[in-house]
Amino acid sequence: MQRITDSFNKQTFMHTLGAELTHVAEGEVDITLPSRQDIRQQHGFVHAGAITTVIDTACGYAALTTMPESSEVVTVELKINFMSPALGDAFVAKGRVIKAGRNLTITQGDVYAIQNDAKTEKHIATMQATMFRVESE
Amino acid sequence: MQRITDSFNKQTFMHTLGAELTHVAEGEVDITLPSRQDIRQQHGFVHAGAITTVIDTACGYAALTTMPESSEVVTVELKINFMSPALGDAFVAKGRVIKAGRNLTITQGDVYAIQNDAKTEKHIATMQATMFRVESE
Amino acid sequence: MQRITDSFNKQTFMHTLGAELTHVAEGEVDITLPSRQDIRQQHGFVHAGAITTVIDTACGYAALTTMPESSEVVTVELKINFMSPALGDAFVAKGRVIKAGRNLTITQGDVYAIQNDAKTEKHIATMQATMFRVESE
Amino acid sequence: MQRITDSFNKQTFMHTLGAELTHVAEGEVDITLPSRQDIRQQHGFVHAGAITTVIDTACGYAALTTMPESSEVVTVELKINFMSPALGDAFVAKGRVIKAGRNLTITQGDVYAIQNDAKTEKHIATMQATMFRVESE
Repeated sequence: MQRITDSFNKQTFMHTLGAELTHVAEGEVDITLPSRQDIRQQHGFVHAGAITTVIDTACGYAALTTMPESSEVVTVELKINFMSPALGDAFVAKGRVIKAGRNLTITQGDVYAIQNDAKTEKHIATMQATMFRVESE
Repeated sequence: MQRITDSFNKQTFMHTLGAELTHVAEGEVDITLPSRQDIRQQHGFVHAGAITTVIDTACGYAALTTMPESSEVVTVELKINFMSPALGDAFVAKGRVIKAGRNLTITQGDVYAIQNDAKTEKHIATMQATMFRVESE
Repeated sequence: MQRITDSFNKQTFMHTLGAELTHVAEGEVDITLPSRQDIRQQHGFVHAGAITTVIDTACGYAALTTMPESSEVVTVELKINFMSPALGDAFVAKGRVIKAGRNLTITQGDVYAIQNDAKTEKHIATMQATMFRVESE
Repeated sequence: MQRITDSFNKQTFMHTLGAELTHVAEGEVDITLPSRQDIRQQHGFVHAGAITTVIDTACGYAALTTMPESSEVVTVELKINFMSPALGDAFVAKGRVIKAGRNLTITQGDVYAIQNDAKTEKHIATMQATMFRVESE
């Protein structure tokens, strides 16, 4: 949907990270993050905060797809478990709506690491987040 | 402590964000994040993911200060509530240890927005995170 | 405040647990849970679910104290870390409001174990919870 | 598996709630909670704390099924979103292992409300919890 793309493009942090919007459907948004050198933590893995950033954004936009046109979305809170180090050529963050409500929308997010020479994706993080609808001005 | 500073300096993502280590003590680490243009979300506020990144890092290092020299720390999980938009000239992320354990350390994090022309800090986010000790190789 | 007490007394689960409302002030509610035999888990400690029940209730009512008279409160979500086994003669669950909002109120909860023959309280659990205001009918 | 059943039967709180172990398989445990009068909150719904208790227990035992015989399991932390009031004749709490590790196991839990005269289950709560393996004595 166009309003998701337009909003995504306004996020300077997505450009800084090199993140791309790779899937948008009703209640579903995917964002892909390349494994760049400038987003690493001390052990050389991609920083958990960069992973959290893209999955939070994916969940927020997934929620927005279920809201009226005049809406903006804000993250009330998120909780994320990091299950494996963020090691790979890229990461796909999949945000999905579990329950869309008038004010509050509950989302589930999962992040997968991709190796370019492999067929499999590795599940590295899982998130639950609560989104709040704000009427845009 | 020197090992926290050395480890922080290895984090390329901290450089990308312009974050600085501004306080280190037993069970306490503060990180300061300037409000740069390249870390914004669609409404012009600093991205929740950038805020989460610095408070996660502060909590991780706060936990590390309570562990033996030979330890590395990884974030098992974190949960953060965003209470106000990240609006300000800079943000201070204060990570504190609540309970230091042999394997698991529980931390509390709070983020405050600072206005250069004001005396007050505004509490914009609060976090709970679980850290795990790994024996370094 | 009377409305908190009246509401608490309608909760049959509080009676089943033997829980008592022991402190009510603006943004603050404490509930005390005795260490009964019928609320234990498999190792003989008080069940984490009983602990969660009383601190969730304390945080919900703490939020309610900051809302208009015509309000009801519901828990959107909660996150709790269990730091030590629930071992003691009683437990005090202290719910506190961190940020009161028009719709959403953010609360912090802590649970302490009490030994009758000791002067000290042991901090056994810490919680963050998001509460939502509903207009009562 | 017998050790899950034996452990469940030692939990006096499960008896107090009237909860039953209704499914055990590798990485999967279901617990069923009847909608009794003595576990209600102030609006007449089943208390969120009772719901949390059974899904926490289901997730803990789901984790235990993936651990060596000599293990005990403790809940490090849990985070739960309540999506609809706990209204129904019974509730099924389904605990599932997402990632089994040597020390830490990540679980996902979902709770469904059942109406005796209906064919459908309603999804009322979703949880993420971190479990820790302890060597039993």
